[in-house]
Amino acid sequence: MKIDLNCDLGESFGNYRIGEDEAIMPLITSANIACGLHAGDPAVMDKTVKLAQTYEVNVGAHPGYPDLQGFGRRNMDLGPEEIEQYILYQLGALAAFAKAHHVEMVHVKPHGALYNQAAANHSIASAIAKAVAWFSSQLILVGLAGSLLIEAGIEAGLRTGNEAFPDRAYNPDGSLRSRRLPGAVLDDPVEVANHALTLVRNGIIISAGSQTKTIPVDTLCLHGDHLLAVQNANALRSALESNGIMIARMI
Amino acid sequence: MKIDLNCDLGESFGNYRIGEDEAIMPLITSANIACGLHAGDPAVMDKTVKLAQTYEVNVGAHPGYPDLQGFGRRNMDLGPEEIEQYILYQLGALAAFAKAHHVEMVHVKPHGALYNQAAANHSIASAIAKAVAWFSSQLILVGLAGSLLIEAGIEAGLRTGNEAFPDRAYNPDGSLRSRRLPGAVLDDPVEVANHALTLVRNGIIISAGSQTKTIPVDTLCLHGDHLLAVQNANALRSALESNGIMIARMI
Amino acid sequence: MKIDLNCDLGESFGNYRIGEDEAIMPLITSANIACGLHAGDPAVMDKTVKLAQTYEVNVGAHPGYPDLQGFGRRNMDLGPEEIEQYILYQLGALAAFAKAHHVEMVHVKPHGALYNQAAANHSIASAIAKAVAWFSSQLILVGLAGSLLIEAGIEAGLRTGNEAFPDRAYNPDGSLRSRRLPGAVLDDPVEVANHALTLVRNGIIISAGSQTKTIPVDTLCLHGDHLLAVQNANALRSALESNGIMIARMI
Amino acid sequence: MKIDLNCDLGESFGNYRIGEDEAIMPLITSANIACGLHAGDPAVMDKTVKLAQTYEVNVGAHPGYPDLQGFGRRNMDLGPEEIEQYILYQLGALAAFAKAHHVEMVHVKPHGALYNQAAANHSIASAIAKAVAWFSSQLILVGLAGSLLIEAGIEAGLRTGNEAFPDRAYNPDGSLRSRRLPGAVLDDPVEVANHALTLVRNGIIISAGSQTKTIPVDTLCLHGDHLLAVQNANALRSALESNGIMIARMI
Repeated sequence: MKIDLNCDLGESFGNYRIGEDEAIMPLITSANIACGLHAGDPAVMDKTVKLAQTYEVNVGAHPGYPDLQGFGRRNMDLGPEEIEQYILYQLGALAAFAKAHHVEMVHVKPHGALYNQAAANHSIASAIAKAVAWFSSQLILVGLAGSLLIEAGIEAGLRTGNEAFPDRAYNPDGSLRSRRLPGAVLDDPVEVANHALTLVRNGIIISAGSQTKTIPVDTLCLHGDHLLAVQNANALRSALESNGIMIARMI
Repeated sequence: MKIDLNCDLGESFGNYRIGEDEAIMPLITSANIACGLHAGDPAVMDKTVKLAQTYEVNVGAHPGYPDLQGFGRRNMDLGPEEIEQYILYQLGALAAFAKAHHVEMVHVKPHGALYNQAAANHSIASAIAKAVAWFSSQLILVGLAGSLLIEAGIEAGLRTGNEAFPDRAYNPDGSLRSRRLPGAVLDDPVEVANHALTLVRNGIIISAGSQTKTIPVDTLCLHGDHLLAVQNANALRSALESNGIMIARMI
Repeated sequence: MKIDLNCDLGESFGNYRIGEDEAIMPLITSANIACGLHAGDPAVMDKTVKLAQTYEVNVGAHPGYPDLQGFGRRNMDLGPEEIEQYILYQLGALAAFAKAHHVEMVHVKPHGALYNQAAANHSIASAIAKAVAWFSSQLILVGLAGSLLIEAGIEAGLRTGNEAFPDRAYNPDGSLRSRRLPGAVLDDPVEVANHALTLVRNGIIISAGSQTKTIPVDTLCLHGDHLLAVQNANALRSALESNGIMIARMI
Repeated sequence: MKIDLNCDLGESFGNYRIGEDEAIMPLITSANIACGLHAGDPAVMDKTVKLAQTYEVNVGAHPGYPDLQGFGRRNMDLGPEEIEQYILYQLGALAAFAKAHHVEMVHVKPHGALYNQAAANHSIASAIAKAVAWFSSQLILVGLAGSLLIEAGIEAGLRTGNEAFPDRAYNPDGSLRSRRLPGAVLDDPVEVANHALTLVRNGIIISAGSQTKTIPVDTLCLHGDHLLAVQNANALRSALESNGIMIARMI
């Protein structure tokens, strides 16, 4: 049994620093690197791709809405064609740094509001998947496990990565419990590690009426932007490995 | 005898339209397409690449300073590493649209202040050339004929395109006569066409002290952003063709 | 009987020009000047305030969403506090140019998606009105006639300007007929002028169930960004004046 | 004897946090608040003005070049009219938050590259001073002690604040020793505090040839963006107060 660990990195901008990229990179297998529209800039992208290369971590694009001030977390009302174009732009921009450093860009994971909207809106999901496939049919499209984004990726002929969140509670339909509700976010590292184990072993169970389906999890999302990030990542790795689960890149 | 005709296109942004792209594209052989930092946006880039494809015009990147408000025409004090990173970012972004439409990105021509500074500053020229070569050694680097940018391209192992301006007067050292001086810009279409003929036949003659060298011209720059652009382009094409000069893409 | 004529102006940006500001300014009584977030920049704002001053046209702020690429026309999901802050920022920025040129800033009219959302969403309307009142209780808040933005302005103790669109068809509830439906936009200058007359004489009639209320119109919106703008504005002015309606600034 | 202590604050942006604003504000008497072009945004400006109000700290504008990615530290080649317009825009934007919170905007201090260029370039200095005076002749213009910016402020009829840097070494001509040279920055808090005492007691001594003039110092600049900022500020305050120097706002 094996699992990929991913983290959103390269989200600094100019003089502004976010995230413990140097400390987190050695602990993960896939880096989702911001592409300059919601976060990141050419200098940060360059540095982050090099850092991923150093630790043999998969390089992936982390495209978002063109909203630096809102960090890509504010819903924006874009048409599908605009979304395709913003995705292409960002994939290309990151791929240039991968190319310059002779590494492969392996995967794509949308960011923030775009990620959330793509999980539940077929038109947005499909726009993203089409743009990714136009860029390269070899890319893995990472999205919320069992969501419309994963379905759109499959329709577009892409490999997909079902992502789960060890520190988030789930609704019965496989969506994330709203952060506004109590219990939405798990704080205790032990609880998070146990949740991770369950997710890897059992997958995400999605119930719709009397029907149930199970989505195997391909990658777990770690957070890199708070003080305990490194400690939590280490605890989670230990829990997985001591239970015989290999931590390995998606291929 | 043959010559390439290039034009800066795709410089619209959002709701803002600049340039007669649809009318100019059929008349040129190389399109320098803005990459979203000084002008252009993902939607404009997408559309302009498709337009170039329709008319079998070479697609090239037209990277500039990150200064939309100044249209990339204001000098900015960037270090060489920053310039490399901004160039890579922009090449990648445009290449994504080329890839999505199955066309090749053939050349790179810096824009505005970056172009002018690169002509006369070795550090800037070298940063641009290195970034282009890192992205792809197949790209043609277009710069002011005989300038430091061309030299840097050659040093970086790139093919280069010596560019001349039919509507601009030259100084004896091969630099462009300052726009602040009288006679810097040729307005009369006949005069422009004659200048074009001379440039193609004789090249740029650069004098330094008692020494003289001649730089053959690879591509002529047309302007696409004024009312007479189309008329002037037609006049220039006629003058070239009726004098036995073939208009053909750089390869 | 009298009416104010307003137009959105100062929407150029850097090298990008939109609108026939010089030709339209003499024909209107209120200029809504973009404030640099969805359109406009400091140089354009400066110039447009001076132009309004020349023709004794009321200077007003035209704040929008922070989305230059979308020209403020894309809905964005901002909280009320963010909206208050964006409004304050933009009012202040424009007021600086008014102050430098010794003219009064008289009114505020939100732009694009912000205008439309404020017409129908109480939380957004109220955030705008509160921010305007914090800046100055003397400002006139201009919004869709009879909409929630006008109500919010009244609640905040502001004077309000009920705006109507001579070139747009209305629904029975006083909202604008969607541009996606046939007949939404009136093209014929004569028809537009007649509609203007009706709007000024009869106001906007709003029906909800069996009830009807009439909203007197304070200002008519002209468009400045298309080729016929000046011609249409002249036709409309003639129609109004020859019917005894005085064209005069809101006070 | 008395002295003002100023600090650049409100330089966070969206999700990005810079500076220990909450901890520093109680220790200073003048806050230079970024205005959204090189740093800061409407939400940050609002919050920072309120914070200054809480601690009865003078609110000042800290305008910079329109270069968020470079944090306003990269020289840009703007004409004087552009500089005037960028200054007006930023003064107005900050003044709106001061107005909304019923506090006075007291001073203006340019940021980064703009500050440095204004110290040594008369045209830039004069553009800044003129724009400040147009906005309000009551504002205090803060600049490098004895520099061209101070001279331009005096010419424009403004009150001025001669600023000195306790943690920076000075050249004999009153300019700051370049950061590229050894000894340019003082690290030791005791040394910094002693330098502060000397600056307040003796002023800046400027030698040009055989001539010498002394510029009394009005305000000392503290830095708020590193880990020791609070500790250093406390040490400096103690040193001043125990030597009978009162810490008090510029008026």
